[in-house]
This record gives sequence, C-alpha cells and structure tokens, in this order.
Amino acid sequence: MEEKQSLELKPIGIIHSPYKNMGEVPHQGYKSEEISQIEVFKEFEEGLKDIEGFSHIIVIYWFHKFQGYHLLVKTPWDDVLHGLFTTRSPHRPCPLGLTVVELIAREENILKVKGLDVVDGTPLLDIKPYIPSIDEKLPIKAGWFEGKLGKERG
Amino acid sequence: MEEKQSLELKPIGIIHSPYKNMGEVPHQGYKSEEISQIEVFKEFEEGLKDIEGFSHIIVIYWFHKFQGYHLLVKTPWDDVLHGLFTTRSPHRPCPLGLTVVELIAREENILKVKGLDVVDGTPLLDIKPYIPSIDEKLPIKAGWFEGKLGKERG
Repeated sequence: MEEKQSLELKPIGIIHSPYKNMGEVPHQGYKSEEISQIEVFKEFEEGLKDIEGFSHIIVIYWFHKFQGYHLLVKTPWDDVLHGLFTTRSPHRPCPLGLTVVELIAREENILKVKGLDVVDGTPLLDIKPYIPSIDEKLPIKAGWFEGKLGKERG
Repeated sequence: MEEKQSLELKPIGIIHSPYKNMGEVPHQGYKSEEISQIEVFKEFEEGLKDIEGFSHIIVIYWFHKFQGYHLLVKTPWDDVLHGLFTTRSPHRPCPLGLTVVELIAREENILKVKGLDVVDGTPLLDIKPYIPSIDEKLPIKAGWFEGKLGKERG
C-alpha cells in the first residue's frame, strides 16, 4: 500500500556542535549558551535568502547515532515508563529530531545558532521558519512533563 | 561520506483529513476547526501511552503529493521570491512537514486532532509532545512573515 512505502531522504547539510557524543549533550540543551554551526551544503545556499530576518528557526535532523527503539521508555525526568511518542527520546521508529533554535548569525551557507542539542556531525534534513502565530499554541497541557522543566520560557 | 548517506524512513501511520487534495487545504489550516484523524499503525499503539495528557502534539509527516522544489519560491502571502527555508512550502529537498495540532481525543490507535493542514492519506512519520518551555521562543522576529498572519495565537 502506498502509505507503507519507504521514504528516502538525503541530508541538505551537516551540524557542527560542541558535543562529541550524546553523553555531552545537556538534557535541557535548549537553554544552553553554546553555539553550533549549521552547514547547509552549497547547492542549497540560495534557499537561505533572507533567513537573517528570523530570530528563531526550526531545525529538523537525523538522529544518526541511535539504533532501535522501545515503545515505552524512561526519561531523565522521572522513573516512570512513558509512551515513546510523549517523549523526545532520540530512539524512534523514524529517527527525526526537531529543535527550535535562536539564529545568531549567518555567514554564506553557515548558520550560527544557540540552543541546538545535537551531537557533532548530525545530518541536517530541513530548516523551517519559526512563526509564532503558527507554531505557538495556548492554552496548553504538557502531560507528564508538567512542572518538570519549570515554567520559564526557553 | 557518512553525512551524505541516504536515510530510509517507514511511516508509522496515516492521516485521514477532510482535504482530498492540496487545493482544499486552507493556507491557514492551523486556524481551522476541521477535525482530522491520525491513525497510528497498531504495532506502534503502545507508544501513545498517556498522550491524552497533552493538549497539543507535534505531527511530522511526509509531503507525499509533492515532487521537486525550487530554492526561491513565491508564497500565498506576497509576490516576492523568498528563500525556500524561510517558507513552509511543501516542495522541499527533504519533503518533511510539521504541524503543531490540538489533541481533541484518543480512541485506541486513533488521535482526533484540530488544525492539521494536510491532504487525506498523508503518511505519518513521527509524533512528539509539544512542550512550551522547550518549543516556545521569545523574543521573536518572524522575518518576511511579520504582520502577514496577524498577531493572534493559533
């Protein structure tokens, strides 16, 4: 059936981060002041036109260091088994990662960003503009995460 | 080189929406009151445990109806050519779509959601919890989108 066909993706870039392995990536990396560099391959550079106008972008990447998954998982936040799709675990059937990051600067095909919680060498799949009226939702219930990460904004 | 390898993904479900083709999908579908049904394949149902606690989820899907892309694109919002990665165009090198939706109800492996702007039959790739302290960012500049979508929240 069509909907069970495989999808083949080729990365559009590579992420250079200060974290050499997953153990070094902070669990709340979105709060980190560390700068990562997103290298968009030269052939896609034109697609970055005017991206400097955005303070935040959505980065989608491939969890390339992670094999396999479990449908119930423990997280760093408590000792309870949670449904995988209520977690941000990197072990997923489709190993796609997503982080909203702050865009600090652009130099040609290189984007310098803050708050990107990925391992050095992570393949980049897509960049989308972060648009509050589309991407922010209120009111909100954050399930079992409630109260675990604090109320402050990232 | 490792970072240029292909990634193969298999859908974890299928999205049933009221929109039979892209022309029917509203440009501001995130505001729509229409209900879509996300069918997570039975083999992944356990991964939905406790998802009812979340009012909003991030849905990642495959733009399966779209072939090819241009790095500079026009959008419904103005007559200017914008860099592809500053738009939400479905024509992308990695045809991944992303929408934050409101979770209305769950019935076993079916999630009823509001605000999902995709064509009926769209393959589902991933579901992640929407967590304001991670996914909401302020202050914000939304580049060329500024003022085009209104200031109200979705």
